[in-house]
Amino acid sequence: MKTAIYPGSFDPVTLGHYDIIERTAKMFGRVIIGVLNNKMKSPLFSAQERVNMLKEVTANLPNVEVQSFDGLLIDFVRQNSGGIIVRGLRAITDFEYELQMAQTNRVMAPEVDTIFLTTNLKYSYLSSSIVKEIAENKGNISEFLHPSVAEMVQAKFRGQA
Amino acid sequence: MKTAIYPGSFDPVTLGHYDIIERTAKMFGRVIIGVLNNKMKSPLFSAQERVNMLKEVTANLPNVEVQSFDGLLIDFVRQNSGGIIVRGLRAITDFEYELQMAQTNRVMAPEVDTIFLTTNLKYSYLSSSIVKEIAENKGNISEFLHPSVAEMVQAKFRGQA
Amino acid sequence: MKTAIYPGSFDPVTLGHYDIIERTAKMFGRVIIGVLNNKMKSPLFSAQERVNMLKEVTANLPNVEVQSFDGLLIDFVRQNSGGIIVRGLRAITDFEYELQMAQTNRVMAPEVDTIFLTTNLKYSYLSSSIVKEIAENKGNISEFLHPSVAEMVQAKFRGQA
Amino acid sequence: MKTAIYPGSFDPVTLGHYDIIERTAKMFGRVIIGVLNNKMKSPLFSAQERVNMLKEVTANLPNVEVQSFDGLLIDFVRQNSGGIIVRGLRAITDFEYELQMAQTNRVMAPEVDTIFLTTNLKYSYLSSSIVKEIAENKGNISEFLHPSVAEMVQAKFRGQA
Amino acid sequence: MKTAIYPGSFDPVTLGHYDIIERTAKMFGRVIIGVLNNKMKSPLFSAQERVNMLKEVTANLPNVEVQSFDGLLIDFVRQNSGGIIVRGLRAITDFEYELQMAQTNRVMAPEVDTIFLTTNLKYSYLSSSIVKEIAENKGNISEFLHPSVAEMVQAKFRGQA
Amino acid sequence: MKTAIYPGSFDPVTLGHYDIIERTAKMFGRVIIGVLNNKMKSPLFSAQERVNMLKEVTANLPNVEVQSFDGLLIDFVRQNSGGIIVRGLRAITDFEYELQMAQTNRVMAPEVDTIFLTTNLKYSYLSSSIVKEIAENKGNISEFLHPSVAEMVQAKFRGQA
Repeated sequence: MKTAIYPGSFDPVTLGHYDIIERTAKMFGRVIIGVLNNKMKSPLFSAQERVNMLKEVTANLPNVEVQSFDGLLIDFVRQNSGGIIVRGLRAITDFEYELQMAQTNRVMAPEVDTIFLTTNLKYSYLSSSIVKEIAENKGNISEFLHPSVAEMVQAKFRGQA
Repeated sequence: MKTAIYPGSFDPVTLGHYDIIERTAKMFGRVIIGVLNNKMKSPLFSAQERVNMLKEVTANLPNVEVQSFDGLLIDFVRQNSGGIIVRGLRAITDFEYELQMAQTNRVMAPEVDTIFLTTNLKYSYLSSSIVKEIAENKGNISEFLHPSVAEMVQAKFRGQA
Repeated sequence: MKTAIYPGSFDPVTLGHYDIIERTAKMFGRVIIGVLNNKMKSPLFSAQERVNMLKEVTANLPNVEVQSFDGLLIDFVRQNSGGIIVRGLRAITDFEYELQMAQTNRVMAPEVDTIFLTTNLKYSYLSSSIVKEIAENKGNISEFLHPSVAEMVQAKFRGQA
Repeated sequence: MKTAIYPGSFDPVTLGHYDIIERTAKMFGRVIIGVLNNKMKSPLFSAQERVNMLKEVTANLPNVEVQSFDGLLIDFVRQNSGGIIVRGLRAITDFEYELQMAQTNRVMAPEVDTIFLTTNLKYSYLSSSIVKEIAENKGNISEFLHPSVAEMVQAKFRGQA
Repeated sequence: MKTAIYPGSFDPVTLGHYDIIERTAKMFGRVIIGVLNNKMKSPLFSAQERVNMLKEVTANLPNVEVQSFDGLLIDFVRQNSGGIIVRGLRAITDFEYELQMAQTNRVMAPEVDTIFLTTNLKYSYLSSSIVKEIAENKGNISEFLHPSVAEMVQAKFRGQA
Repeated sequence: MKTAIYPGSFDPVTLGHYDIIERTAKMFGRVIIGVLNNKMKSPLFSAQERVNMLKEVTANLPNVEVQSFDGLLIDFVRQNSGGIIVRGLRAITDFEYELQMAQTNRVMAPEVDTIFLTTNLKYSYLSSSIVKEIAENKGNISEFLHPSVAEMVQAKFRGQA
């Protein structure tokens, strides 16, 4: 049974991320979502909040687990005896950065491979930062997020007001 | 009579921006330049200074107005009963970001559409930040800006010295 | 009242083309669809068939006309006293070719401008050639074309069998 | 046990293709290489020759099969009860075309997904057509192909001389 | 004294090509323009006509020579004891193809390097094929070509009428 | 004897940078590496440390000099009577930014030209920031840097612990 790792910041998890998770869970026996702890200077949600959010949203997918990690992705992948990293691709600029990371990781850990899934058209324009910008300006974010996540994002920005 | 909205930071307005404004003014009955107030952390010019600059530079175009706005572009467009957003395209990276914004806006406001104009070749390399970097290093910026704008930029950097 | 020209091969017209036509018809007083006569070596449909197809599909849009043309687009635009060319953008490779054509046209006819609309996400993967390839292999094309157009395409390939 | 399909023309199979095949065989229980029969107007090798070449080159990979197919890829995938298409990515232009095909296939067959692997850096410049061009001009192709394939390509061009 | 090779089809040579030639002639002691003989199926001008055209156009540049070649570029470069290939870049799609060729050439001939010059903005939209298409449709090509080349192109199309 | 300038931040110099330096030194009589002093907010190494690092690494290349500079690149190039700027290209996003800088520089200093070299495949994924990120997380950086540079980077991060 193959283990696939899907790493990211998920600040917050969008319907685009969920689309990738659901499709990966059909392809591999076990999927671990890795919530990156140290990447962003000041995230909207703490790593623990993001882990909880993802657990709630993926509760219906029995072969999906959620963990947070810091340090190098390659070390996290090795600790989980996973050999496959999964990444979503939306656009060309994504593609270039992802390619660079995949090649660097291959030099450092030749036994680990990276596969790419293209984001569903319906969510191909979505990003966590655009969603936060809309919410901060009191726009409607219900088309982009799971209902419970949308509520948590709105609560954050109300709290800041 | 159709109203087109041309939003941006314009910190400062370059000859490339002016080229887009002039061409848009030929296509639509009314053009509103929207000066974004909250996008940049520390702009060189205040929103009010940028509005004044644009008014001076577009004084010869009778169907062009200038306003500043904050919050979501979509809300600004609706308040001005405009149905068309105008954006200039210089390069591929522009294109990807602009595409993403246009698609997000379409989900949030289906009655608003976005059109793109390609920047005149002569100005296709120009950006406000490159101009500021050159001015800060005492380079010659007269090829890139209206004379009155060039003077205001130079005055800013002299003031900071 | 501004006249916009939307040129193309339309062999056959897809729902992606129709999306661009409908949005252009809301922006400008008059829209002329220009069916290019001499571009393709061996089109599936004759220029006259393509003109008829487009007339049927746009019958509900009163300010849209359909004509065929050969020779340079710039000459066709001038004959119709239109100052605006409309082009749809799907991808980066589109963008580069379209940019090159827009710049060449500007050198040859400075009074004519080109605007770009991004194709609706739902149709952003569509192209006339992919549709023909699917139809040739007896795949289902009803998601991509107006019902009457789909029927005409299928009839062509049955006729060739 | 998941079945992955790796389709292509393979005229001829290069070391870049082999790299993708080997990595896919580690990820999935069964891999079927689909040799496209009708895509190229005048291939250097017949579909049968290409199937034989691939069988020889992948003899050491027990979970890899080789078949030829014509018609739509989606129909071939369904006949082999495979749910996953594998494609290699080298460059941006690859990416755009592949994205378009993946989205079209998803509309036609929602149960089939596509994953992308980035070609090993060492072979990221390789293409079957460049190899054929070099061989035709009597250049050295031994860096790009398995020895037995290189020999077959050289024999073809000697035969034509 | 370094020798640089500038290869191409030059069917016909445009002002964009000339811009690259002139700038290369300032950088290197000797420049050889290599006119590719076998690349195009049916060129407008024979290889000999293209060599003559280039000789006339570069008569004012004493360190520039013109030769035609067939076969592999790498072999032509070696025969002329040149170690540097010069290529012009206009757009992303150029860039990708050029990168692929440069890497292939490096594997085959490690002692040869490739440098890229970006085409002058003024000519960045120009291509030999667009010029031929305009001329075929009786458009004005005098902005794109040296006067003597423009005349030869027009004569060709008159002859074909 | 032509002088070429290779500017950059080099924080730290990687094997990818060294590849470009070595190839440039074969093409031109004299090469000056320009270490940019004011570009980065908080570099890992001071400008003086980076100059020393580069001098050590290029000690075997007799026609290579190292200097630091601040202000505009164009002014630095003029002070060194160099007419040629050398830049490495790894990816599309590099290409767009570099193109923009090259065109801006050409407007400001028409006598200076820019040439591009594509980074050796083996190092095409490398960037100074990825190397620093790996070192910060205690990953192995010996594949990416000269031994003495790798040691200096590791010492910096030990010092911070």
